[in-house]
Amino acid sequence: MGVLAQRRLDQLTKPPGSLGRLEELARDLCRMTGQCPPPVREAVIFTLAGDHGVVAEGVSAYPQVVTAQMVENFLNGGAAVNVLARHVGARVVVADFGIAGPSLDRPGLQQRRVAPGTANLARGPALARGQALAALEAGAALVEDERPRGLHLIGTGEMGIGNTTAASAVTAAITGLDAEAVTGRGTGVDDATWRRKVEVVKRGLAVNRPDGTDGLDVLAKVGGLEIAGLAGVMLAGAAHRIPIILDGFIAGAAALAAVALKPEARHYLIAAHRSVEPGHGHVLAALGLTPYLDLGMRLGEGTGAALGIGLARAAVAILAEMATFKSAGVSDRA
Amino acid sequence: MGVLAQRRLDQLTKPPGSLGRLEELARDLCRMTGQCPPPVREAVIFTLAGDHGVVAEGVSAYPQVVTAQMVENFLNGGAAVNVLARHVGARVVVADFGIAGPSLDRPGLQQRRVAPGTANLARGPALARGQALAALEAGAALVEDERPRGLHLIGTGEMGIGNTTAASAVTAAITGLDAEAVTGRGTGVDDATWRRKVEVVKRGLAVNRPDGTDGLDVLAKVGGLEIAGLAGVMLAGAAHRIPIILDGFIAGAAALAAVALKPEARHYLIAAHRSVEPGHGHVLAALGLTPYLDLGMRLGEGTGAALGIGLARAAVAILAEMATFKSAGVSDRA
Repeated sequence: MGVLAQRRLDQLTKPPGSLGRLEELARDLCRMTGQCPPPVREAVIFTLAGDHGVVAEGVSAYPQVVTAQMVENFLNGGAAVNVLARHVGARVVVADFGIAGPSLDRPGLQQRRVAPGTANLARGPALARGQALAALEAGAALVEDERPRGLHLIGTGEMGIGNTTAASAVTAAITGLDAEAVTGRGTGVDDATWRRKVEVVKRGLAVNRPDGTDGLDVLAKVGGLEIAGLAGVMLAGAAHRIPIILDGFIAGAAALAAVALKPEARHYLIAAHRSVEPGHGHVLAALGLTPYLDLGMRLGEGTGAALGIGLARAAVAILAEMATFKSAGVSDRA
Repeated sequence: MGVLAQRRLDQLTKPPGSLGRLEELARDLCRMTGQCPPPVREAVIFTLAGDHGVVAEGVSAYPQVVTAQMVENFLNGGAAVNVLARHVGARVVVADFGIAGPSLDRPGLQQRRVAPGTANLARGPALARGQALAALEAGAALVEDERPRGLHLIGTGEMGIGNTTAASAVTAAITGLDAEAVTGRGTGVDDATWRRKVEVVKRGLAVNRPDGTDGLDVLAKVGGLEIAGLAGVMLAGAAHRIPIILDGFIAGAAALAAVALKPEARHYLIAAHRSVEPGHGHVLAALGLTPYLDLGMRLGEGTGAALGIGLARAAVAILAEMATFKSAGVSDRA
């Protein structure tokens, strides 16, 4: 199918290869879906929210209550992911995978709470293995629920104060890299907090000893509910041959776990952008993905995925709508 | 106005700076237009076509007739720039600035012919100074004609077999760099043709001795009609404080000439993307611009500008539509 896509691309009225990575993206979408041109009309960004007990270690610049407040903001359409999703014409599905405190009873919020938050990974396992599995399954169920409405492209997003710490621990566990290399400043912590965050990641790995070859073990011991949920979204998407447009670092850590669980899932992943988070570069290298955008973004929520959905649609429009040398009566190269 | 924009951006429900270069783009659009949020609804890609006598030196992979054939393709909506302009919701204005052969009498084609093609820059001046000035003025007139229909963003595009040779000569003349450094493979020439192209650029500079500090002299001696026209589009856009979203190498060479003519024009330029053409990196460095996208594109027509228009709209949507910490009741950092 990739070969068929390339043949079609080379018949279009442009020098071969002159649209660069847009052509690569078009080819990949054909390969993933088995269709050329592939369907891209219905795009959904899954924004999964969960809280992290590790915030008790003082690793974030924002208070934990912001997770729930931002979920309200998502539901009201006022967050960055809502704006960028509207810009590209994608739906946003917001799901509670474990926000701290009482359940939010809000219309439009998908109720997928496995627990009222992920435990403090610095002091013991973040989740029981059964909880991680339940979150994986709940993520897959989100995808199943959206399929009847139409689901051609999946964008991944998340919200969870403290979750870059968990993503760093997951990345270190799976790639074997040092905590220093995969830990960044998240929403913007200062030097002292960054050093503490590195120590917390190290302690989480030492206390829990996750098996980096076992994706579920990593998600349970040092991951989190929304991260496991995202891995479930990815596994279900891959099973249905739906292209998965990854957001930044946290989605990337979830993808590492998903690919550890099911290596074939790798073939359905597209890296929308390169986040400022230093761990994200290592995640992308481990996944063998080259991001399309490098705009210095580090917000999460699915904001990078939204821009990636726009690019995917552009790539498919090229494939589907451009004239060929023959149809347009344009002379090919001598 | 940039300060006002930054203050607004920092009140939005996201960590400060976390949307990276989208925030920079929003700030720049506010600064350029003097409005915050700036208007971006009406975007026009100006695709100027012209032929180049220098093709007689054997510098292109495609025959000259492709310029006129591609203009037909633009008018029929089948070219890459049409597809990407539709994708982002921009109009395409196609103008004949000097296609070889008889005038094309086609509805929708803006008639701005100064001559039936640019002369061979390797054997003498590409244009008379008066022709270059006429093309500059015709470019400015295109902008004036579109303003009553609404014109908030200008994208620049071009079509002209042989025009990367002219763009290389313009870039060398203005930056003082060697022909080897600023000459690339255009639509995809082989090694032997590339070496010939470098020699042609050197000869053009030696024969014509353009004054690199005089933008009009450079456009006349080693430029071309559609390149001068693009410089005119840019000068008119800048005069009206309309942001100009540059496409790739040829638009960049035109921008170098425009800025040589009027240094203030620099403040209205946005680099949509980095082209594969090696000269483009030098153009961007000379203009002091950092491109937003790096997708390995080298097609021209305005294709990169179209993607840049999409990004500009996304940046402004963030500024205009996101909730503030206060309006959404979200706690700011501790």
